[in-house]
Amino acid sequence: MQILGICGSLRKASLNMAALRACSELMPQGMSLRIARIDDIPLFNQDVFDAGIPEPAKRLRAEILEADAVLLASPEYNFSVTAALKNAIDWASRPPNQSWQDKPVAIFSVTPGPLGGARVQYDLRRILGQIWAHVLPRPEVFIGNGPSKFTDGKLTDETTRKFLTDMLAGFKPWIERMRVKK
Amino acid sequence: MQILGICGSLRKASLNMAALRACSELMPQGMSLRIARIDDIPLFNQDVFDAGIPEPAKRLRAEILEADAVLLASPEYNFSVTAALKNAIDWASRPPNQSWQDKPVAIFSVTPGPLGGARVQYDLRRILGQIWAHVLPRPEVFIGNGPSKFTDGKLTDETTRKFLTDMLAGFKPWIERMRVKK
Amino acid sequence: MQILGICGSLRKASLNMAALRACSELMPQGMSLRIARIDDIPLFNQDVFDAGIPEPAKRLRAEILEADAVLLASPEYNFSVTAALKNAIDWASRPPNQSWQDKPVAIFSVTPGPLGGARVQYDLRRILGQIWAHVLPRPEVFIGNGPSKFTDGKLTDETTRKFLTDMLAGFKPWIERMRVKK
Amino acid sequence: MQILGICGSLRKASLNMAALRACSELMPQGMSLRIARIDDIPLFNQDVFDAGIPEPAKRLRAEILEADAVLLASPEYNFSVTAALKNAIDWASRPPNQSWQDKPVAIFSVTPGPLGGARVQYDLRRILGQIWAHVLPRPEVFIGNGPSKFTDGKLTDETTRKFLTDMLAGFKPWIERMRVKK
Repeated sequence: MQILGICGSLRKASLNMAALRACSELMPQGMSLRIARIDDIPLFNQDVFDAGIPEPAKRLRAEILEADAVLLASPEYNFSVTAALKNAIDWASRPPNQSWQDKPVAIFSVTPGPLGGARVQYDLRRILGQIWAHVLPRPEVFIGNGPSKFTDGKLTDETTRKFLTDMLAGFKPWIERMRVKK
Repeated sequence: MQILGICGSLRKASLNMAALRACSELMPQGMSLRIARIDDIPLFNQDVFDAGIPEPAKRLRAEILEADAVLLASPEYNFSVTAALKNAIDWASRPPNQSWQDKPVAIFSVTPGPLGGARVQYDLRRILGQIWAHVLPRPEVFIGNGPSKFTDGKLTDETTRKFLTDMLAGFKPWIERMRVKK
Repeated sequence: MQILGICGSLRKASLNMAALRACSELMPQGMSLRIARIDDIPLFNQDVFDAGIPEPAKRLRAEILEADAVLLASPEYNFSVTAALKNAIDWASRPPNQSWQDKPVAIFSVTPGPLGGARVQYDLRRILGQIWAHVLPRPEVFIGNGPSKFTDGKLTDETTRKFLTDMLAGFKPWIERMRVKK
Repeated sequence: MQILGICGSLRKASLNMAALRACSELMPQGMSLRIARIDDIPLFNQDVFDAGIPEPAKRLRAEILEADAVLLASPEYNFSVTAALKNAIDWASRPPNQSWQDKPVAIFSVTPGPLGGARVQYDLRRILGQIWAHVLPRPEVFIGNGPSKFTDGKLTDETTRKFLTDMLAGFKPWIERMRVKK
């Protein structure tokens, strides 16, 4: 079961990326993670799309299509989705081959503040639900007070690791259930 | 009264941009419009911000700060804000000089479908309200079935022109009321 | 396939109720509709719930549990869900027997204004998605300018009847797909 | 400066109500709090409204109209507003005398879980903003892990008391600024 990870932050030392990497170790047997690059995708412009999808966007579209599921890790910028992540979602959503169609998705978020990204997660759920992705409803993982949970760029907080482990364990049967039988 | 217009679509033939341009003629006496460019702003990355705000983002921040108010015209991508517009909002929101602080804002949207952008407007209201911009509550302008309302790239539908005229007439006292006295 | 209809308006001449009734005739073969009553359920109060669920709420909980799916028709009050509908959702959501768990749901809305309820539908999607109901993503049905589409309390507008027919046709395979195998 | 408090929970031992009561002591000089009753207002039904507004709804409408500002305390039911609070908002919003028009409002929320009500607060902001109430943007107060912060039904957690004190201190100039001069 191939999982594509996408991180909404482009910072080198992003805690969301660090937590996403940790998911590799926390996944149940039979799942494996590969992380997509989205920082080189230009701002979406339908004129550009029509003239020929740029390589980085083409690559992302193919990666989502091939993956069995997508795992999103995202900070919250001004109470909503980051431009980088919305950009990636939009490029991948245009027909033909709307990449999100029937794709199982799980979301988590790390924020410096205490709320852990409640607002961005609900925006993402709404956006993805409407383009026919199937977002895991629960368990939800909000990683608040982010900096306190990482050491040297690694997710070391045991409670948080447990939350992610539980979410990934729940993600597996969700992927199996939501996958369209071909 | 200087109004800065920002358009959420980067398409050359964007109907939102065409409607934004029409606002120049529909504004009450004493307001004037200048349209900002946002297509050359790179995807927000805090590392880049910290290393030195790129020129296009610096320019936008200054334009918002100087304007008496901001007028947003935006399509709806996947039921929410476009990456280009969210990117512009985020670059302009970072301290110091959080550009949106106490800035009066009005929003309208043009969409090809019949709803006219109800979803993106409420996302924008929520996002901007929280960074202390003051968004005009009413009248709301949703321009659905967009293509039928423009001729040769000009907004020609009289009803729609009337809606925008009314909104701009209501925007003026809102700007006066919400402006912080210096 | 038993569908439970719930209408968010308590008005006697509610257009949402009229459209819900029309769904009986528009449903594909093999589906049948029964409409729940929610006007006699008291305002949710956990103290009352703990002291013994009132009969009307007990009745609704049983009806949802027994139904194969739920069809919601709702107006939009102040840009969101009506108190009557939120009340019904909340009473039915409390454990034990969280009635919405894995329940397929479809939503449509009728409004006097032109938008047809875009805002209330997304609130309902978000609320229901999080309590593990499975809301049909598309086609969406927004019935704007409601009064023009009904004659003597019957839904007579052919385009609208077609939209509902298409939605119900899409609802059937969604119910089959999302239903948990027992 | 008369503040009307409204609590979204009807429970006798509601922590939101307990925190609302605590606000009486935490308010700056010159503000005073009176708490409205909303449990006896029937579910909104336009037919009933048209036949004659019921006494409890009439009372609430008058209280809001007379108050200089409204302070809302609300739990989160299924990720959104409680039926009791939405009901109160809707009854008070109907013309004539739309009671929320230009009314300054502040919101806080207490929840048993760690998020403290982020979702309900943004729904309330969106709903109230559109009916032309003016909701204090910041500071925001989310009181998560509610039960740990109260002793014998009193808000005793010092950090939380400080948060509410700061919000109320910020509310005062907001009320002065947003109040329409008569």
